[in-house]
Amino acid sequence: MPLQYKEFYNERTGLTVGLKKLLFSKQSEYQLVEVYETDTWGNLMTIDGMVMLSERDEFVYHEMISHVAMFTHPEPKKVLIIGGGDGGTAREVMKHPSVEQVDMVEIDETVVEASKLHFPGVGDFDNPKLNVLYEDGIAFVKNVNEPYDVIIIDGSDPVGPAEGLFKKEFFQFCFDALSDDGVLTAQTESPWVESYYPSMKKVFGALDELFPISKMYLSYIPLYPAGMWSMACASKKMSPLSDDVLKRASSNTELLKSLNYYNPEVHRGAFALPNFVKRMIEG
Amino acid sequence: MPLQYKEFYNERTGLTVGLKKLLFSKQSEYQLVEVYETDTWGNLMTIDGMVMLSERDEFVYHEMISHVAMFTHPEPKKVLIIGGGDGGTAREVMKHPSVEQVDMVEIDETVVEASKLHFPGVGDFDNPKLNVLYEDGIAFVKNVNEPYDVIIIDGSDPVGPAEGLFKKEFFQFCFDALSDDGVLTAQTESPWVESYYPSMKKVFGALDELFPISKMYLSYIPLYPAGMWSMACASKKMSPLSDDVLKRASSNTELLKSLNYYNPEVHRGAFALPNFVKRMIEG
Repeated sequence: MPLQYKEFYNERTGLTVGLKKLLFSKQSEYQLVEVYETDTWGNLMTIDGMVMLSERDEFVYHEMISHVAMFTHPEPKKVLIIGGGDGGTAREVMKHPSVEQVDMVEIDETVVEASKLHFPGVGDFDNPKLNVLYEDGIAFVKNVNEPYDVIIIDGSDPVGPAEGLFKKEFFQFCFDALSDDGVLTAQTESPWVESYYPSMKKVFGALDELFPISKMYLSYIPLYPAGMWSMACASKKMSPLSDDVLKRASSNTELLKSLNYYNPEVHRGAFALPNFVKRMIEG
Repeated sequence: MPLQYKEFYNERTGLTVGLKKLLFSKQSEYQLVEVYETDTWGNLMTIDGMVMLSERDEFVYHEMISHVAMFTHPEPKKVLIIGGGDGGTAREVMKHPSVEQVDMVEIDETVVEASKLHFPGVGDFDNPKLNVLYEDGIAFVKNVNEPYDVIIIDGSDPVGPAEGLFKKEFFQFCFDALSDDGVLTAQTESPWVESYYPSMKKVFGALDELFPISKMYLSYIPLYPAGMWSMACASKKMSPLSDDVLKRASSNTELLKSLNYYNPEVHRGAFALPNFVKRMIEG
């Protein structure tokens, strides 16, 4: 086993993490899923050599991809998660008392297996509200009959099996699978990683054409390239920045107390984009 | 020359940057200053092996350490920069039309030398408003007679010559060297780097005791550890989040057009702290 995990972006710029032990390694039908014990981040999952989550920093990604959408919808009952096999997004979604049903469509059972074994604090797989389906997310969304209030696209990078999750056709299926006041969020890569610029521009272009409201927001994720990660929030009716949304978020004090990153000020602040990021998706 | 620059934090977690050429290397009386040509970040300066700036990402740090304070003060005329030898902070400060005099007190002439040679777009050293003084910043601040409107503490990490810039005694000198409506900003390390927690807590504790208003704000700096960097804004009168400040920032459209990161929404959003960061400086 190597002593250090290394991931590179922008040629030879990259992240290094000190490793203690390889805990899990399985080449599934789709990808190579690995889990390492690290020196300071707890357990770390990689897919095809790219960091997905660590025990110590996973709260950032999971809170930010969930609660922005969940507070933007006035009363989310039925939620669809595409990907999200580690279970962290479902865990955050199910903290909202209005939620009745969460369908998580993960293409690769190996991710769930690795999470259940080595990330016991991440998934809440025994929650009776959660249905885990091992299917292709794109085919699933295409065939939805009963619409969802919130759809969260929690896939990996736009190479390999998650590539289709960055295409306009897929977002059209999502739009059709959402209720009239439906809200969608998606992870959309880092504004500092050059090779992802074309996918990012396409994603925000597509969402802008399909949804009345679509916006980028940002979070600090230390183990993702450059530490700056973008997400998309697209909505049929309610702006994620409306006073109602921020009031709703502020009033749920029980839920907020359980969080380590998200709060209503962070929700609002995350949509403030630096000039170079604005120009990237507008220009 | 190594093929890759490497910097580690939290044991073996670190950043790697691909290098092309060593351009400058000088052991000064205080520290080792080096400049490399990199594969995708332009030229990169390190001090004692820690990244200070790259040509490609320096705008983030320099805009954020300057404009928050410069717009918080109603009409900054006289500005003191402690450190800041690369010249980028002075460049941003001098974009404000009210500025008459900028005193930059850099302990190490080697930093200015390296910047003039290898970062031609960073410094604005020929600007007649700028006085560069090669002195100890702490001794200088202690002996200020004519107060400053804004003081910016742009030092390196709290090890080596910059250690004293993180101490309460020094902030007391700064307080005394500021005019009645004076504003101070300082770089205060990353909330993800464990070894800096004690300094961060001390800095914010000290500022809180000395200044009527003191707040932390955050920026995304891709080549600094974990990509999340904190700064402090402390003020005798005006809150950096008051409507007047944000209006003042919004109205200066000429200046804003020249920026790549800072805008009034980013100014406001940067003060929205994730829960774990809040707990770190409050608890």
